[in-house]
Amino acid sequence: MTELENAARFLRERDCFEILTHEYPDGDTLGSGFALCRALRNIGKKARVIFTELPPNYAFLAKDFEEQSFECETVVSVDVADEKLLGRNREAYSGRIELCIDHHEINRVNAPVKCVDPSSASNCEILYRLFRLMELEITPAIADALYTGVSTDTGCFKYSNTTPATLRTAADLLELGADSFFINKLMFDTKTKKRLELERKIYSNLTYCAGGRCAIIAVTRDILDETGAGSVELDGLSSIPRQIEGVSVGITLREKERGVFKISVRSDENVMNAAQFCSRFGGGGHAAAAGCQLDGGEERVREILVGAIEESI
Amino acid sequence: MTELENAARFLRERDCFEILTHEYPDGDTLGSGFALCRALRNIGKKARVIFTELPPNYAFLAKDFEEQSFECETVVSVDVADEKLLGRNREAYSGRIELCIDHHEINRVNAPVKCVDPSSASNCEILYRLFRLMELEITPAIADALYTGVSTDTGCFKYSNTTPATLRTAADLLELGADSFFINKLMFDTKTKKRLELERKIYSNLTYCAGGRCAIIAVTRDILDETGAGSVELDGLSSIPRQIEGVSVGITLREKERGVFKISVRSDENVMNAAQFCSRFGGGGHAAAAGCQLDGGEERVREILVGAIEESI
Repeated sequence: MTELENAARFLRERDCFEILTHEYPDGDTLGSGFALCRALRNIGKKARVIFTELPPNYAFLAKDFEEQSFECETVVSVDVADEKLLGRNREAYSGRIELCIDHHEINRVNAPVKCVDPSSASNCEILYRLFRLMELEITPAIADALYTGVSTDTGCFKYSNTTPATLRTAADLLELGADSFFINKLMFDTKTKKRLELERKIYSNLTYCAGGRCAIIAVTRDILDETGAGSVELDGLSSIPRQIEGVSVGITLREKERGVFKISVRSDENVMNAAQFCSRFGGGGHAAAAGCQLDGGEERVREILVGAIEESI
Repeated sequence: MTELENAARFLRERDCFEILTHEYPDGDTLGSGFALCRALRNIGKKARVIFTELPPNYAFLAKDFEEQSFECETVVSVDVADEKLLGRNREAYSGRIELCIDHHEINRVNAPVKCVDPSSASNCEILYRLFRLMELEITPAIADALYTGVSTDTGCFKYSNTTPATLRTAADLLELGADSFFINKLMFDTKTKKRLELERKIYSNLTYCAGGRCAIIAVTRDILDETGAGSVELDGLSSIPRQIEGVSVGITLREKERGVFKISVRSDENVMNAAQFCSRFGGGGHAAAAGCQLDGGEERVREILVGAIEESI
């Protein structure tokens, strides 16, 4: 019996499921959780999704979703590579996972039934195959949830993990009613007006050094105050400088409190080791992404970094 | 006989092709041009692609591509909705197109053989079906070219024109050797320095109307002169306004020559039909993406559009 068949039989035999997702949840773990929960409920079983938080942009997954009152009999995890990643739910569920469905290369969950396929770009791709095997009805809400995982874990089919199977799964899900336009717009193409303001200001203070091989942007207290930007707007900001053609090192200054800058360095490892660079200022990290802290005015901090970059590249 | 069968027979019977692409070329017209040219050459025919320019980010389409010397006998157009869109090649080819392959809702090309399918998200999708029908070999270079059109015309499968057939075509092309990771990184995740400058200036002139449901940006001659932005930088610009939260209609003004604006409208079809909107000004296109032209100063053109939008939404 394959892992998939084993998982199918397990789900058929059991009831009263709690489905665990990982902390700092993304589209794949939440999409998996809600898809599985809905599919189980549709065949008369009781189930709920356990998450550390449900960020506003994923709230659509729980649309028309009713609370069910029951005592948990079966614990399943989705897209969880290690019990550590359960976050604040770890203690309550440690050692209790009976079925682990995952797609990570290294899975450390200790469970009697495991269904782990690292060749799948997303966990939702595995669930789609599982639902087809079990001949479960894939409603539009389930298709939406599965599509969310398939799309987000591949950067909307841009990352190198995207396979023909990924794209065919997405095609099937569209046919089953997934609203890919709505989901992708929400996941990838939505900028708040504050974020737009933030980008406008950051683009205005962007400078190059080392002959254009390094770009530096700064998010100062003034910019934060003027734009009202919060964590939603700041997310992913440090990838901006590296997207510029010819830029191998991208530096983002973020003024945590007045005169105290958190420095984030993203680097092409072949050009400069970001961790080594940051260690000069008491920081650290990985070769491609590292950080440190510098105190002083923006001008002075930029000067220090430019000097150090021109020595390092 | 279907249009596709007709086009297949035409291509089989003829030789010495010139394949016309539209001005301000995008991934779909260039991808179509190079894919068709390579496929015809592979069955021993002579063919060349005619373009107004080949922007550097599309140069990979012409990799290992040799010039052929021959006198043109057959003119084919790809992704060209109207002879007007041939730009500086219009005069030389006017009335000479014998086969027109296109996917636009309204196609005004006058040609004896037409193969127009507006249900295809991209022209490359039609070509893929045509190549399969003709049993032509789809080499990795052809797969790359077709994938480029399929991906760029759907915003990497994000736009509402994406269908299950689009995704299945992309899946097949991956299997045939398309390097989707390389293509998508180049098309969607790389910004030139000029593009960054252009975005900075455009963000500064962005305005909202219809209570924030419409956003308008303008690329004026001054901005083009100051930034030195070319077609590479201008590509995909018109998707920017629609990315803002709450914006259903995005309008991009582009000053072709002083006082002559090319208007590009992107719309949520449920809110406003872009083709209908543009037809008020003598333009056309698809329900979700259309264009027209307006003459006058930037201020005046914006006024006209804001008035029309507030009547239409």
